[in-house]
Amino acid sequence: MYKAILSYDGTQYFGWQKTKMGPSIQEELQKAIVKITQETPLPEAASRTDRGVHAEGQVVQFALETAWEPIRLLRALNGVLPSDIRVLQLELCDFHPTLDALGKEYHYRLCLGPAEDPINRLYAYHFRYPLDWDKMNKEAGALIGTHDFTAFANEPEKDPICTLTAIRITNRIEIEGNRFLYKMVRTLVGTLLYVGCGKLANLSDILASRDRKRAGLTAPAHGLYLHRVVY
Amino acid sequence: MYKAILSYDGTQYFGWQKTKMGPSIQEELQKAIVKITQETPLPEAASRTDRGVHAEGQVVQFALETAWEPIRLLRALNGVLPSDIRVLQLELCDFHPTLDALGKEYHYRLCLGPAEDPINRLYAYHFRYPLDWDKMNKEAGALIGTHDFTAFANEPEKDPICTLTAIRITNRIEIEGNRFLYKMVRTLVGTLLYVGCGKLANLSDILASRDRKRAGLTAPAHGLYLHRVVY
Repeated sequence: MYKAILSYDGTQYFGWQKTKMGPSIQEELQKAIVKITQETPLPEAASRTDRGVHAEGQVVQFALETAWEPIRLLRALNGVLPSDIRVLQLELCDFHPTLDALGKEYHYRLCLGPAEDPINRLYAYHFRYPLDWDKMNKEAGALIGTHDFTAFANEPEKDPICTLTAIRITNRIEIEGNRFLYKMVRTLVGTLLYVGCGKLANLSDILASRDRKRAGLTAPAHGLYLHRVVY
Repeated sequence: MYKAILSYDGTQYFGWQKTKMGPSIQEELQKAIVKITQETPLPEAASRTDRGVHAEGQVVQFALETAWEPIRLLRALNGVLPSDIRVLQLELCDFHPTLDALGKEYHYRLCLGPAEDPINRLYAYHFRYPLDWDKMNKEAGALIGTHDFTAFANEPEKDPICTLTAIRITNRIEIEGNRFLYKMVRTLVGTLLYVGCGKLANLSDILASRDRKRAGLTAPAHGLYLHRVVY
């Protein structure tokens, strides 16, 4: 089994998962594997990143019949992959990409101030309102730990219990946890931004309410990065 | 007279200056000014950045017959400019963009390591060879001060004398000076990278030789940023 660490610019893709709607990371990676090895495994990822979301450390698993030296296969794949997808590391490893994952870390990049930075327009979310960082950091504390995160889920979930282990708020928002509900990271970010500009307060109440309508907006995809997966 | 500070993603442009070859920053800014004010001044910049070069702090001057409140004009221009060009600041100021400039600061962004970072592929130059940062910093010292920079100029220059006031080499290369010859920053960067990977040494000899063939390659445009202009 091969374990690959992938970085990608999600701008042009419909997300990780293969879809008839348009290009996906999974399909591009599979096409590259077929081209190099003439085998057709369907690579599986630790996180099915959504449309437009980027990755700095997506973890992917696939199996091949033929034995390839990892560094040779890495170079060959990078030689045929589109320039917005790259294999950063590749090794032989017996693991399951989702079941063995202990946690994930997402980063959300912001562009602050009255005018958007054009160089980062596809890679950070422009938020024009001044933010109270102290308040955001203080309120974020209420989210740490094991909770029912229904208030931050964008669709009904069988198991809404997640454990957040860290939230760091600097000029970006970094969130670590054992698992995340659908669009939960982006809704946490949107809610923290509302706290920062004074539109919302008391996150422990919002969390306890289990009411999605009380949380903030879902922040857009282009600021979000799957930073790493912990095994 | 209006003084504007501009940031732009140079990827899609043939450089600052208006040209029949394709889109330019100067033309896009002029079109925006015409749209908002119905006047047609030709904006002049502190630096005619080349095709593909980015700017974080380009300084631009233009005159208008009608008096506009700067903040209103800034917002109106940003409302019609393409999303890869933004006016960051705008003020009324009596100055000449090139003659009054005391110096400029350029930044050159690098992506290091064996695989290119896909998220930065349009915004940093991927250099795959390990670099000796100490050696680069030490050799860069020979370039500081007032010298004849003919060895780093890509075309014959009437006046090849420039003063470099600072070179900082961290994970990027930052160069400050009073003026720069055609493609000089990118040739300095290419030469410093050759020093860092052991292909070249003794920059004081290369500088004294006034021989372009002894310096390194001209690094590509997409890593270069006009960071600021000093008045």
